[in-house]
Amino acid sequence: MRRSARAAKRLLSRLAADSLRRETLTTTRAKRSAPHRVYDELAGRIAELGRQAHQRGWALGTSGNFSAGTSRDPLRLAITASGMDKGRLSPAQVLEIDGEGRPVGGGGGRPSAETSLHLAVVRARGAGAVLHTHSPWSTLLSDLHAGAGGLAIEGYEMLKGLDGVTTHEHREWLPIVENTQDWSAGAAEVEAVLRRRPDAHGLLIRRHGLYTWGRDFDEAVRHLEVLEFLLEVVGRSR
Amino acid sequence: MRRSARAAKRLLSRLAADSLRRETLTTTRAKRSAPHRVYDELAGRIAELGRQAHQRGWALGTSGNFSAGTSRDPLRLAITASGMDKGRLSPAQVLEIDGEGRPVGGGGGRPSAETSLHLAVVRARGAGAVLHTHSPWSTLLSDLHAGAGGLAIEGYEMLKGLDGVTTHEHREWLPIVENTQDWSAGAAEVEAVLRRRPDAHGLLIRRHGLYTWGRDFDEAVRHLEVLEFLLEVVGRSR
Amino acid sequence: MRRSARAAKRLLSRLAADSLRRETLTTTRAKRSAPHRVYDELAGRIAELGRQAHQRGWALGTSGNFSAGTSRDPLRLAITASGMDKGRLSPAQVLEIDGEGRPVGGGGGRPSAETSLHLAVVRARGAGAVLHTHSPWSTLLSDLHAGAGGLAIEGYEMLKGLDGVTTHEHREWLPIVENTQDWSAGAAEVEAVLRRRPDAHGLLIRRHGLYTWGRDFDEAVRHLEVLEFLLEVVGRSR
Amino acid sequence: MRRSARAAKRLLSRLAADSLRRETLTTTRAKRSAPHRVYDELAGRIAELGRQAHQRGWALGTSGNFSAGTSRDPLRLAITASGMDKGRLSPAQVLEIDGEGRPVGGGGGRPSAETSLHLAVVRARGAGAVLHTHSPWSTLLSDLHAGAGGLAIEGYEMLKGLDGVTTHEHREWLPIVENTQDWSAGAAEVEAVLRRRPDAHGLLIRRHGLYTWGRDFDEAVRHLEVLEFLLEVVGRSR
Repeated sequence: MRRSARAAKRLLSRLAADSLRRETLTTTRAKRSAPHRVYDELAGRIAELGRQAHQRGWALGTSGNFSAGTSRDPLRLAITASGMDKGRLSPAQVLEIDGEGRPVGGGGGRPSAETSLHLAVVRARGAGAVLHTHSPWSTLLSDLHAGAGGLAIEGYEMLKGLDGVTTHEHREWLPIVENTQDWSAGAAEVEAVLRRRPDAHGLLIRRHGLYTWGRDFDEAVRHLEVLEFLLEVVGRSR
Repeated sequence: MRRSARAAKRLLSRLAADSLRRETLTTTRAKRSAPHRVYDELAGRIAELGRQAHQRGWALGTSGNFSAGTSRDPLRLAITASGMDKGRLSPAQVLEIDGEGRPVGGGGGRPSAETSLHLAVVRARGAGAVLHTHSPWSTLLSDLHAGAGGLAIEGYEMLKGLDGVTTHEHREWLPIVENTQDWSAGAAEVEAVLRRRPDAHGLLIRRHGLYTWGRDFDEAVRHLEVLEFLLEVVGRSR
Repeated sequence: MRRSARAAKRLLSRLAADSLRRETLTTTRAKRSAPHRVYDELAGRIAELGRQAHQRGWALGTSGNFSAGTSRDPLRLAITASGMDKGRLSPAQVLEIDGEGRPVGGGGGRPSAETSLHLAVVRARGAGAVLHTHSPWSTLLSDLHAGAGGLAIEGYEMLKGLDGVTTHEHREWLPIVENTQDWSAGAAEVEAVLRRRPDAHGLLIRRHGLYTWGRDFDEAVRHLEVLEFLLEVVGRSR
Repeated sequence: MRRSARAAKRLLSRLAADSLRRETLTTTRAKRSAPHRVYDELAGRIAELGRQAHQRGWALGTSGNFSAGTSRDPLRLAITASGMDKGRLSPAQVLEIDGEGRPVGGGGGRPSAETSLHLAVVRARGAGAVLHTHSPWSTLLSDLHAGAGGLAIEGYEMLKGLDGVTTHEHREWLPIVENTQDWSAGAAEVEAVLRRRPDAHGLLIRRHGLYTWGRDFDEAVRHLEVLEFLLEVVGRSR
């Protein structure tokens, strides 16, 4: 009798842990070193964001990739492995890379094909997290406005969700760069564009999607939602 | 008995239970006084609504804020803290303020930057709850119709979901006020607009979003869904 | 030890409270008579459909109502109570009415204000279930095509989801009737329209929404999804 | 004490009934032979995909059907039974057929009415999985472009999610075939079209929907999401 009561209690505590992956992470974390805890926390956040972005239709068909810095010096990023279904993304599908894009730990798989672009954003902005989505609206508008080299979004309250923007009268310029399959060369162009426009909070790749970033993961997620929202408003206003 | 323990173990391991924040709240609540119970109940409803509104795309990027009266005299509101991600909104991110917008209890953080606007609605309408969303359709239509000073919605059955409306032949006028970053002054304008239009059930802030309210939380949520629905119909009918 | 057993019990009760309403229903059902089991089953299905329709944006702001026949002779319907939030609809918010629309059992509340319309459909079609939704597309199209007295949908494979339709070459005519607030008179008109068009699987109320039905609940749900899908396709094709 | 143990057991049984279908499957699987495990795994994946596609509005009203090869020689497919509600699709609503479309095992029901089409795709492509959805965009665009005999999608990054496509400069041609109710004849036409266009990754049936496939289930799901995404972008760009 005592045994069954104890078994019930033990199992119930496991149950709570079993429900949320984040909870599980917390449990595991307690036993790990500080750097591991940072990595585990960010891999969990990346996996959760991937599933949400997939659900919203912003990362279908294994598209989209997400990274977050786990260390500044030496530079280390947690980044989604290449080719993963974001609707089932787990922390084990996130790996750790160094400043040259070489895997140094974390889950298995190869780093995302667009790793050099993430690193370019980190270099140009000192970003703590870089998020890339493929929504219908970003795909469509990055094509329509490619001739102008960018898309201006102005006068919306939602712009105040962008770091440093304190009024809706802000004019946000989203540069548009041509798509390429050679991101080792392309990354240099992206880095140059970002240095020319130090005020930009995001970047569109033509017929490809949105890149945005933030000092930390929370800020990057906020920028992502702000910009995807504004692209939808602009798209529906046509 | 060992059999029942094993059965318990087997069954438990199969469970993938979600630990509901509301359940936890219920437990905590049992030990609290009546005013606290009112506050806890409303903080829970606000958090739940925030997550739903985020899921529908009505409160992305930390936008949106929600309040509910916990006491009339003295006036006390439960209101979302500033800058919270609505997709993860918890009751602990709701705080209690007095009629001047000063925090008097509840969760941490600062009250929403638009607190004065919530208080203006409470003064002008005697509202028991005030809800503010940033949907694409309200953002887009509040801009298109700004020149006319408002948007008329007429002849829809859904209008009957608004308090006191008994026929679809009703004509609802949603005033549109210019956006501002000075809501201490702006709140006076909003209050004046609402007193001039005592029949209005909502209000649009240009390129910013919708405000609506109700005598209690349920009515406010109904008004929110009714108006967001109608804005979508009007937007898609263009 | 007794404390740990009590703790387990307390935790389990909380988990159980979080469990599916349908499960609870099943348990309760075992002790009830056959007619009660039919009622309970249908009340559960109605509540589940309400929550789904709300999630899809087809029943916002307490709009929408759903009924299912629990007995032919005497006629008895399970029908949603008036004014309920469909996003939280529970079986207890469904009640049982007779052929005159008078409550005879089930949950509390008043029957839906459009009860006479449900009964008209049951009389004209011998329907076993009647479903009414307020989607943006049905609202919008019922207005655009009101002048023609109806909307023809033709040539789509999805039409084969309608009872008795065996080819996509089918032409479905959805009659449109003017909205009214006097459904005791309006119901007679609806019944007359349905008798004139014995081939129609649904009906639009102008600026109000869709009515559809089926021999049983499953067929009615299928008709609902088929017609809402087709209205979206027609709406987006404009 | 015994009472609390019994109470625990009773509550647990109810909770367990509410547990995940996949869990149940896993448990059952442990006792089954290797071919059965392949079948069970694929039936589970098909059921899960059906529920997701329904949730996205790609398989409403019992539309859509999905298959996956369980054996090459002899040819065996797991395929959705005809007329099932995809929102509630369970592994028991998937059955196993041979190369002539005759049921040889698995769940109950008749194989999908479009079984011959699935088999045509398997013959023409050696596909390991065939997926068919009815989204609004595929329905609408398959009609608009029917005159041209197909729809070209070119220049999008998302195209790289298609097997063998290594650059966004790829031009994907989606053949459009007329809808028919005689799929024993129609299947031959589909097979001929696919053999003429060995580079196509999908196929539209006019006013009916999309067929796509992959070497295995994961690849087919990726192709489905890629093509549905691109159809939405093309549709919204009009």
